[in-house]
Amino acid sequence: MTAGAQDGGILEPVRWEGDAVAYVDQRRLPHDLVRERAESVEQVVEAIATLAVRGAPCIGMFAAYGVALARGLHAGDDAFARAADRIRAARPTAVNLAWAVDRMLRAQPAGALAEAHAIAEETRLVDAAIARHGAALVPSDCAAITHCNTGPLATGAGGTALGVLIEAHRSGKRLHVYADETRPLLQGARLTMLELAAAGLPATLIVDGAAAAVIGRKAIALAIVGADRIARNGDTANKIGTLGLALAAAYHRIPFYVAAPRSTIDFALASGDGIPIEERAAHEVRAFAGAAAGPEGCDVYNPAFDVTPGRLIAGIVTEYGVARPPYAESIPDLETRPALAALA
Amino acid sequence: MTAGAQDGGILEPVRWEGDAVAYVDQRRLPHDLVRERAESVEQVVEAIATLAVRGAPCIGMFAAYGVALARGLHAGDDAFARAADRIRAARPTAVNLAWAVDRMLRAQPAGALAEAHAIAEETRLVDAAIARHGAALVPSDCAAITHCNTGPLATGAGGTALGVLIEAHRSGKRLHVYADETRPLLQGARLTMLELAAAGLPATLIVDGAAAAVIGRKAIALAIVGADRIARNGDTANKIGTLGLALAAAYHRIPFYVAAPRSTIDFALASGDGIPIEERAAHEVRAFAGAAAGPEGCDVYNPAFDVTPGRLIAGIVTEYGVARPPYAESIPDLETRPALAALA
Repeated sequence: MTAGAQDGGILEPVRWEGDAVAYVDQRRLPHDLVRERAESVEQVVEAIATLAVRGAPCIGMFAAYGVALARGLHAGDDAFARAADRIRAARPTAVNLAWAVDRMLRAQPAGALAEAHAIAEETRLVDAAIARHGAALVPSDCAAITHCNTGPLATGAGGTALGVLIEAHRSGKRLHVYADETRPLLQGARLTMLELAAAGLPATLIVDGAAAAVIGRKAIALAIVGADRIARNGDTANKIGTLGLALAAAYHRIPFYVAAPRSTIDFALASGDGIPIEERAAHEVRAFAGAAAGPEGCDVYNPAFDVTPGRLIAGIVTEYGVARPPYAESIPDLETRPALAALA
Repeated sequence: MTAGAQDGGILEPVRWEGDAVAYVDQRRLPHDLVRERAESVEQVVEAIATLAVRGAPCIGMFAAYGVALARGLHAGDDAFARAADRIRAARPTAVNLAWAVDRMLRAQPAGALAEAHAIAEETRLVDAAIARHGAALVPSDCAAITHCNTGPLATGAGGTALGVLIEAHRSGKRLHVYADETRPLLQGARLTMLELAAAGLPATLIVDGAAAAVIGRKAIALAIVGADRIARNGDTANKIGTLGLALAAAYHRIPFYVAAPRSTIDFALASGDGIPIEERAAHEVRAFAGAAAGPEGCDVYNPAFDVTPGRLIAGIVTEYGVARPPYAESIPDLETRPALAALA
């Protein structure tokens, strides 16, 4: 079912509507902004599996509401458990998905919706804290560069790296953002440019290969990206192309920041060497937004992530503040902090 | 008119056929290999203007044959001069185009075809010399990475940077090539991957943003690219994304080479600061082959080239050998050398 998007639009990609989980179909962006309603477990699973809802925290929030929906639809414990299992299995490798479903299963049946709201609220609190701490790093009149998609569409709340830039803009700083298109899936072109427009933040789209030249020619003052996984020494796995941006920032002597919730830090991991790199399908590279580019059947190497060494990172912005080098000291400090929700 | 391509195929993109200039329509690559015949000045102009023939040296060679064709078709000097003017104006900013037409105009009417053949033969000699000098830099069992398109489709002969890699392969070295797709126009995906396949050289396509990770993960031994313009100090303007590749090479401590004919060196230019950077149309970034990526009408910055500082370049391969740092000494030395054709 399709409803109008006269609401938070793309800045509110997941929302509970009393008898359904409403979501923006991210596959149709930037061309069509369509809010769908998942009214059954089937539709929740379908939205996650087909990437209509994507971005790790956004998937977690959506899945939590999906489990709350299942609780209302399935009176029996067995039927409910099967429904939750199906939601958890919609994307097997999504850590936030399994985490959110498991947390929902620990809630009392009567408290399911409240627990989903709590997960959503915590995401909002964490993103807001990241944005506040990060915005302090942004000069009052400058240009910034970012990679991939780290705004509301990725987290379901304020966003991480893009949340920082949006907050700096909202607080009155004069800011222009350059967004890498982020091949192969073009999240920067398709999603980030849209979020920037929705936030009223002046922005310019560039190809990934232009970043090194653009930082110099446009006097960019800082680079800021999100993270998929951060090791104890600050080594950061993020969308392919992040390392190249970090090297370009180092070359031009501008700070390169990472913004991510503490939950992104793998405290058990000593360095980035231990981070496995997902390889994705060749067709993502052979084609561009559906148009064939490379020769049919040509060999492709398509790593989803790269690892940027901590020594190239000027600061890691979490909900607790900005961790600075040496990360081997500042990151372990974060492990023992109380959850932000408890502080709020 | 279309003829079969049972000839040199893409490795012979321009060829004189007695009463026409045959050419591979590069717009239709990699999907269709079609050899067309330009039998009139109209068709020559059209092929250049529509980018069916592209790559600076390749355009020069094609234009030379086009002027020879015009000489045969137009008995009167006035009609011939107008035809030559139309060919020269087919792409106003193409230096090799004007150079080739002007050289053809200085030839005797009876010697026009011989002069066009001479231009083609000199390109072959220069490319072969670059390939030979450059191949000596390639270890006998290694992987290399390149950017954009610098093979036969670009020069009409053996190619420059890709010619080096093809020559290393032909000479029996075990080599694997990683090709950047080269956004926005995807010359790497569309053209370079095809040339590598035609040359029987094992190759893998990657997105531009993956280069920094791939050099490390695939133990790549060298990077080699072409050039659009080289200053006296070695600063090199080349396709956007080249600087990022050079930074990735420096980070991984592998040599980064440039391969280009001496004619690419602007001996009057002290440094890359003086190189103007062409900005191209926004739609190249917003879309590819009709597939839209970014939001309609979003702001785009699309510089065609970047400038890699000479200090990041381990060697510049020309038809005279490998110029090494300090370039302020080795490059001026090249200015006074006799033309290679005179040496052959």
